[in-house]
Formats: sequence, C-alpha cells, structure tokens
Amino acid sequence: MSDWPERCATVLERLRQQKPLVHHITNFVVMNDTANVTLHIGALPVMAHAPEEVADMVRLAGALVLNLGTLSQPWLDAMRLAARAANAGSIPIVLDPVGAGATPFRTDQNRAFLQDFRIHILRGNLGEVATLCGVTAEVRGVEAMHAAAAPPEVALKAANDFKLTAAITGAVDHVSDGRQVIAIDNGHHWLTTLTGTGCMATTLVGAFAAVTPDALLAAVGGLASMGIAAEQAAQKAQGPGSFKVALQDALYHLKPDDFLRRAKIREV
Amino acid sequence: MSDWPERCATVLERLRQQKPLVHHITNFVVMNDTANVTLHIGALPVMAHAPEEVADMVRLAGALVLNLGTLSQPWLDAMRLAARAANAGSIPIVLDPVGAGATPFRTDQNRAFLQDFRIHILRGNLGEVATLCGVTAEVRGVEAMHAAAAPPEVALKAANDFKLTAAITGAVDHVSDGRQVIAIDNGHHWLTTLTGTGCMATTLVGAFAAVTPDALLAAVGGLASMGIAAEQAAQKAQGPGSFKVALQDALYHLKPDDFLRRAKIREV
Amino acid sequence: MSDWPERCATVLERLRQQKPLVHHITNFVVMNDTANVTLHIGALPVMAHAPEEVADMVRLAGALVLNLGTLSQPWLDAMRLAARAANAGSIPIVLDPVGAGATPFRTDQNRAFLQDFRIHILRGNLGEVATLCGVTAEVRGVEAMHAAAAPPEVALKAANDFKLTAAITGAVDHVSDGRQVIAIDNGHHWLTTLTGTGCMATTLVGAFAAVTPDALLAAVGGLASMGIAAEQAAQKAQGPGSFKVALQDALYHLKPDDFLRRAKIREV
Repeated sequence: MSDWPERCATVLERLRQQKPLVHHITNFVVMNDTANVTLHIGALPVMAHAPEEVADMVRLAGALVLNLGTLSQPWLDAMRLAARAANAGSIPIVLDPVGAGATPFRTDQNRAFLQDFRIHILRGNLGEVATLCGVTAEVRGVEAMHAAAAPPEVALKAANDFKLTAAITGAVDHVSDGRQVIAIDNGHHWLTTLTGTGCMATTLVGAFAAVTPDALLAAVGGLASMGIAAEQAAQKAQGPGSFKVALQDALYHLKPDDFLRRAKIREV
Repeated sequence: MSDWPERCATVLERLRQQKPLVHHITNFVVMNDTANVTLHIGALPVMAHAPEEVADMVRLAGALVLNLGTLSQPWLDAMRLAARAANAGSIPIVLDPVGAGATPFRTDQNRAFLQDFRIHILRGNLGEVATLCGVTAEVRGVEAMHAAAAPPEVALKAANDFKLTAAITGAVDHVSDGRQVIAIDNGHHWLTTLTGTGCMATTLVGAFAAVTPDALLAAVGGLASMGIAAEQAAQKAQGPGSFKVALQDALYHLKPDDFLRRAKIREV
Repeated sequence: MSDWPERCATVLERLRQQKPLVHHITNFVVMNDTANVTLHIGALPVMAHAPEEVADMVRLAGALVLNLGTLSQPWLDAMRLAARAANAGSIPIVLDPVGAGATPFRTDQNRAFLQDFRIHILRGNLGEVATLCGVTAEVRGVEAMHAAAAPPEVALKAANDFKLTAAITGAVDHVSDGRQVIAIDNGHHWLTTLTGTGCMATTLVGAFAAVTPDALLAAVGGLASMGIAAEQAAQKAQGPGSFKVALQDALYHLKPDDFLRRAKIREV
C-alpha cells in the first residue's frame, strides 16, 4: 500500500494548525469561490493586485496562486511583480493557465511566466497543459476538448520541459514531478457542471504548497482534497447549485482521516 | 395552440448537443453567476476582455453577450473590439444595458453600441429599454421604477427604432421583433430578490442565440427557460439564498419537455 | 432595559419602506454577496466606478459604501470622486478598511480617506481599526490576529481620533461614537468561516445609514441584523456553504420584531 494518503493527512493537519496566508491574483469569475475554499480548507486568503502593495503582500504569504483566467496587461504586470517577490523569498508559486490554447495571447503569456519565473506547480486541464508544452490540443474557451497525448504523458512532459510539478485535472487527475506520475481517482462528474472548480483545485494545491516544500505532495494533497470533498458533496447534491454548497461544506469538514479512508492515489 | 413551446424545446435540444461557446464581457457583480448558468443550460462560458485577445476569443464563440453593468472606459474599449469582431463574423450580439437611464454616461454608452454595431437582441428591464428609445422612465441604480409606456409598446418601439429583437423582463416578459410582440407569463417573484437575475436571463438568451439564427425565438426561449426554472426553484426555496441554489439546479435539469408542459407563451 | 432593539426595529421598518439606493465601490471578491445582502435587507444596490458617472450615481444614493479590499489606483480615484460627491450632498459614507495594517499602501490609503473626507462610519476588524488609529496590531492578509488594546478602547479611540462612529466586529461587536461604547453579543462562529462576512456587515450598516442620520444607531442596527441573521442561519447550516445560503434567506426574512426578541445590545 502506498503511503500517499497518510502523507496527505499529515499536510492537512499542518495546514489547519498553521493557517498560512495564500495570496491570489486570479480571475474575476472565481474570486469569491477561491477565497472561500482557501478558508474552508484551513488557510487564510488574500487578494491584492495593486503594484504599490503586491510585493509586500506576497512576502506575508505561504504561497502565491497566479491564475490567468481574465488576464489583462495591468493584471499581468501585477502578477509579474508578485512572482518576482515570491521567487526572491522562496515562496512557492502555483500557476493556473486558464484558457491557454484558446488564444495566442493566453498561450504566450502563460509561457512567459513559465520561462521567466521559477513556478513550482502548474495546474491545468489537459488541453491547457498540452498546449503549453507543445502537444497539439483543442481548448474551447476555457474547456479542454481533446489532446494528441494522454494525460500521464503530458504531465510528465510538462514537468520535464518546465522543471516543475505538473498537475492535470480531468476524469482522473495526474500529477508528475518529471520522474513519477501519480494518478488520483477521486472526484465526481458534478465538478464539470460548475464554473471555477479547476480554479478551486488550484487554490487547494496552493494551500497545501504553503505548508510543505514537497511540490508533488502538495499537488496530490490538494487534488485529492477536492476529489474526496466532491464525492461527499455529490451525495447531498441535486444539481450544480446544491453541489457547490455541499462542496464548500465538505471541504470545511474534510478530516485528515478522510484521506486514509477514501483517497484513491496510485502510481502510474 | 401556439407552436412556441415546441420550437423552444428544439432549440434547447440543439444547445445541449452543440455546447456552443458564449463569450461574455460583463459586469463584476454577476460574472460567477452568468458563467454558471451558461454551463447549466448546456453551453460553455468564456470571459475575456484583454484587447490583445478579445477578437480572437469572439471568433471561437457562438454568441457574444455584452453587459454594461460596471462599465469603465477600458472595458468599453474591449467591448467595442469584441462587437466589431462579432459583426464581422456574423456572430450574434446580445446587449444588456444595465442601469441605462440611471446616469447620462450609461445611457450614452448603451446608445452608442446600438448605433455603432449590429445588435441582435437587446434585453433589459422596462426602465432601461424605455430610456434607450426615448420613452420617459425612472431607473434607480439598476432597478426600473416606472415608465411612461407599457412593456409591449416599449418592446415594439425599441425593436423598430434599433432594428433588433427587444426583450423586456418584468412580472411578465415581452419580446418583440418589431412586428409581433410575444408575452411570457412564466417567472416568480423571488427573481426580484436576487441580484443578477436579469443578467442571467440575458446569458440564457445568448446561449439560445448561439444555436438559432431566429433572434425572436432565441429571446423567447432564453426567457422562458429562466421563467420555468424559477417556478421550479420556488417550490424548493425558503428565501433568496436557497432560491438561487435551486434555480441553478433547475436550469441544469431543464428538459425540452418542460417547455411543452409549462411554458406560458402568447402573442399579444 | 435599553431601547436599542426598538430603535433598530424602527429603522429596519423604514428601510423596507423607503428602499434606498446604496452605492458601493467595493472589492471584486464580495461584490455579488454585498449586492445580494443589500437587496435582502430591503435596499437597492448599485455598483459603479467609472469616473464619468460615479458622482452622478452617488447623488441618487442614500449612502455610499467604500471598501478598499482589492484597491488599485484607478479604483481609489473613483472612490475619491464618489466621496467628494457624497460629502457635497451630505450622503453618509461607510468605510471598510479591508486589510489595513497588512501593507503600508493599504494603511496609508485608508488613512487618506479618513483625513480627506468626512466619513460617517468606519467598520473593520480589530486589527484594521487599531492600525488606523495607531494602536499596535497584526493583520495577516485581511484577518486580524491581535491588537495591543481591547475592542471597546479601540472603538472609542478611533471614534474620537477620526470624529466618526467606529464599529469593530469580532466575537462581540463594539460600536462607539466617541462618547459611549455599545456592545452587540449576537453573531455566530460560522461567520468566520466564510469570506466577505465583514464586508456584508458593512453593507448592512450602509443600508441602515441610508435611512437614519444617527450613525451610532445605523451601525448598531446593521451589525445586530447580521448577528441575529447569523444565529438563525446557524440553525440550518451544516458548514460554511449552507450557512451562506441560510444567512441570505435569514436576512431577507429578518423582521423588526426579531430585534425585540433576539438582539443582545448593551452599553459597555
């Protein structure tokens, strides 16, 4: 038996004790949801993007989440200031390349972050991550339609190409540090019926990354949290609206022990 | 018996099959809600406003929703780029003139869009639409207080003045293509207790417009969807919070058959 | 027995009758939530920040809520235009100094508003308000960690220093006009598990301030509304997600009579 569930449980416990600050510069659509799941998993959210304060705020944080969902030049400038401060302070950065592949601008801007900064974890869907590492894929808006390679391959390639931990969410989630690939079989179909669940997963990964230097573990722990909470929420949900409510409740009540009893984490 | 319910049902079926992309440039207050109802009705939402990508994103979309709720010059610039690309590609535009009439700036900016671009569908409340076509009305913030003409008249006048389909929501919804006026008697009082329900209705109209070239049908179908879902949601709601949750659930579960059994659509 | 509950009840009744417009310039994270609670308590929300219209919109409003949560220079400029128009029209301003103390920029910008404009009510957490009036405190992101003085002292000092009514929310809320300090013992732990509950409380204070010139009463009424609704919501909630839904329902159903039966308001 793998010791992943146990290790995830330990990190969640630490997270609840330390209550790290997770700084987000993220898209307008999901700000409320990602601030909420940050709180529910046990961390403290902050959102700040003014160039006058963004570096100061990063220095207080345990992790920085950059999400390019509704990107524009002023926000990209703020993200770059934040990324520079994070790298200078060895604060882990989690990048969510929302819609990379949908337009050249999104693809280019995300690639620029990967090139110019040390990104610790890249969390996207198959189409986004495939696009970024040069695998042919179709992204319709912010939705992955298909890719020319399977998720484990793409995760491995992205991890090696960009020297980071790559996390691809989908029916099965795949995480790779460039050597191994870990699959997480938790989750639920309802996640696809709600906007921002990918962004929320990225936030959870950021919260975990704030309390462990092990990027692979942070990604696995964050995604398994989302998957397990989704399974619990689905039992109470009657549609995407009630699923969201139940998901927030479930994340708040998620216990370290839930990893031991429910996590489906395997090496590929 | 009118064949409107059947025609609406056919469009909803097509919508669920084609899953068109609906591009929004909309206000900050409702972004999460409108992205969610786009998904729930069966389409794919995207929100993008950077001038560097906005035209590229429009070209991927089946419809463009422009909502001037928290307008500012940079966002208006983005909307104009998007509208130009949409007109060039014959992609239908649905305009939501939030708060037109409340300030001269809002009124002027909305009129400019109506003048400078081919808008397919205008969806507003009575005060907003009346103001835009020169009928005396009072708009308090984003709320219609009264107007000097009745909704059917205003819808007809707006449709003729601006050469588009005009949809006015209220206790009864009215839609006109400049020749006929269609009334929709579905809906529920709870809709007025929740922010953004007008914006969500506009989004649904946009999703329908993405899969039918018949603007009148798209407007009727979108508004009837909202009205029927609201009636279903009201049965489970105990207040505006639980109504919103139930409304999202109901839109997701809305079936073509629901139009046949519940839609109250009549010619005025 | 104090007559506070009765006085709060009278203001709520007036609020429901007059339906005043409450203009917000606020942070991206909570816009949807604050617009909703404005509606639920019985007022009309509007959000506008374009320099071309912001003063026009303020003039229609019964109160102006300024919330510096995701501040940036363009938004600060808009807030200053709005504040000037509000002061010129004797429209009460409620200031929410989100995250003051977390970065020098936030502290400075909030102090500038307190210095440059007549602010009627300042609503923050202990760390924020303490920082603003020079009491040592720690603010982690937007969360108060501790302060070198107790809430009643800080409320009294802030009220005197800035010549306004200061409202500090926490396990117990404290409000002072510089002479007396009022404590409100309503509320619930769930409020700390949800983002934006402080911002929502500020909004409620703004709605009350729109219908009474008595700033102390507006602050007490707004905070007691939040506290009572939270207690009612907690009875139906199973976690932060369902608590939010129930809180929105409860605010909508809050009755003047609920103050008489449930409000725990005392002079300190």
